[in-house]
Amino acid sequence: MDTKENDSKLFTPGPLTTSLTVKQAMLHDLGSRDTIFINIISYIREKLLELADASPDEYTTVLVPGSGTYAVEATFSTSVPRQDAKILIIENGAYGQRIIKICQALNILYDVISFGETERVQIDLVANKLKLNTYTHVAIIHCETTSGILNPIEEIGQLVYDHGTTKDSTVYIVDSMSGFGAIPVSLRNGHITYLISSSNKCIEGVPGFAFVISKRKHLLTCQGQARSLVLDLYDQYTYMEQSKQFRFTPPTHTMLAFKRALDELEQEGGVQGRARR
Amino acid sequence: MDTKENDSKLFTPGPLTTSLTVKQAMLHDLGSRDTIFINIISYIREKLLELADASPDEYTTVLVPGSGTYAVEATFSTSVPRQDAKILIIENGAYGQRIIKICQALNILYDVISFGETERVQIDLVANKLKLNTYTHVAIIHCETTSGILNPIEEIGQLVYDHGTTKDSTVYIVDSMSGFGAIPVSLRNGHITYLISSSNKCIEGVPGFAFVISKRKHLLTCQGQARSLVLDLYDQYTYMEQSKQFRFTPPTHTMLAFKRALDELEQEGGVQGRARR
Ligand SMILES: Cc1ncc(COP(=O)(O)O)c(C=O)c1O
Ligand SMILES: Cc1ncc(COP(=O)(O)O)c(C=O)c1O
Repeated sequence: MDTKENDSKLFTPGPLTTSLTVKQAMLHDLGSRDTIFINIISYIREKLLELADASPDEYTTVLVPGSGTYAVEATFSTSVPRQDAKILIIENGAYGQRIIKICQALNILYDVISFGETERVQIDLVANKLKLNTYTHVAIIHCETTSGILNPIEEIGQLVYDHGTTKDSTVYIVDSMSGFGAIPVSLRNGHITYLISSSNKCIEGVPGFAFVISKRKHLLTCQGQARSLVLDLYDQYTYMEQSKQFRFTPPTHTMLAFKRALDELEQEGGVQGRARR
Repeated sequence: MDTKENDSKLFTPGPLTTSLTVKQAMLHDLGSRDTIFINIISYIREKLLELADASPDEYTTVLVPGSGTYAVEATFSTSVPRQDAKILIIENGAYGQRIIKICQALNILYDVISFGETERVQIDLVANKLKLNTYTHVAIIHCETTSGILNPIEEIGQLVYDHGTTKDSTVYIVDSMSGFGAIPVSLRNGHITYLISSSNKCIEGVPGFAFVISKRKHLLTCQGQARSLVLDLYDQYTYMEQSKQFRFTPPTHTMLAFKRALDELEQEGGVQGRARR
């Protein structure tokens, strides 16, 4: 490819999905141990808890460089014990099917309850499935991006909370990739153990990392469980709590853009404001 | 953190590790299916082969969003069969030790031959170890970044080539994270099966993805071997060959910066030119 020709092509506007000011935030190099960068990490982690209406006593944000699927895989890899675990995957589209693929790759036992691609998840059918079986984990997609269908994550959360012999013993994983930041969610009531989203969806940063808002009490039970070094949420969390830094080189520029995107979300009136748009 | 205060802080120059023009390349949004972006992917993959002096008939570039460690883990996860495999890890520092951690997380059988952190890998000791044992894979760090020690990857490559009952049957994995792009390397002679590096080291792009220059013939034997969905080099390769796209949302801005960084490396006289600097 000719450089000059290519440069002129690049200046043709493509789909404008992030503001210019968000992109301009990437014009700075920060070292990953730089105090400014370390403060930005903390700011992002705290701000995401706020957006999720999650108490910092109960929840923590784990940042996962890579795309959204990396964070989904990291959540399963870390939170599912190698023995005596079985997941119910509630599926009504492409991203529910991706969770099935992740469980297959990780050798995790699962059942699937499927709904049509244009159908909302039906609460009574899920309730029945939960009554007839015992699951250690339940997973669902908040908004199935291809169809746009919004699933009833709070009602299902109540069912999951009541499932099993002791209340709140079943892990509830919600992939809210294309919901979080635009659809109001409250982790104070939703019984969600892990909520997953990424930098480039509704918060409108650039792609490059994802995050998992995690119930700390559960996360702390997951030491040594991950089937991976890099996709180990427990390690990522404990290392960052101790050092304030990432275990591996973080995508610093992407994170600067995300910080800026969070500021612009706030200026727009927060999640409520963006939901109106 | 106060936004205004933070903004003024951000404009304080930090460590300048990439050129302004490389960062300015990120001021554009491109969709991941955009033709311009697809051409940039091809350009980057081909250019990396050129820089490695690798024949496109023999090698292919697999791109891995995430940091360098992601690509190292993906290489082991994908290239090591679940049975009947044993790796020799040649270790003389922090990044050799990281490979040990990766093999532990992935449940991969390994032996380690260690040298001091300030000591170059000794060829005769490795030769001896290879004579007394049979390994399916051998792994080494090109340049141990913390000590700056450069290991004799070509001589070891010759030993690995001659190892085992048939020549060239042993997989040779080289982590050249901090070498590639500044230390000339030729895959025409080095017997390397997988060479790993990342966007933000000597090519001087911004952090956010890594790459594995892979012997196609071996990669094609790896279907279904990966212990992960996202870190599956085989899947990443075959999907991209068919669709010209990434399987999951790629870090588009980081890749635009990298394209620009490759152009600037060329203007500087290529790897030879940068090596002189
Ligand atoms: C609901 C949902 N889950 C997962 C993903 C995967 O995210 P990524 O492409 O960033 O890996 C997406 C992407 O659009 C999504 O919408
Ligand atoms: C030789 C070597 N290997 C691996 C890594 C890990 O790369 P990352 O921090 O991008 O995950 C580094 C990082 O400096 C390195 O120098």
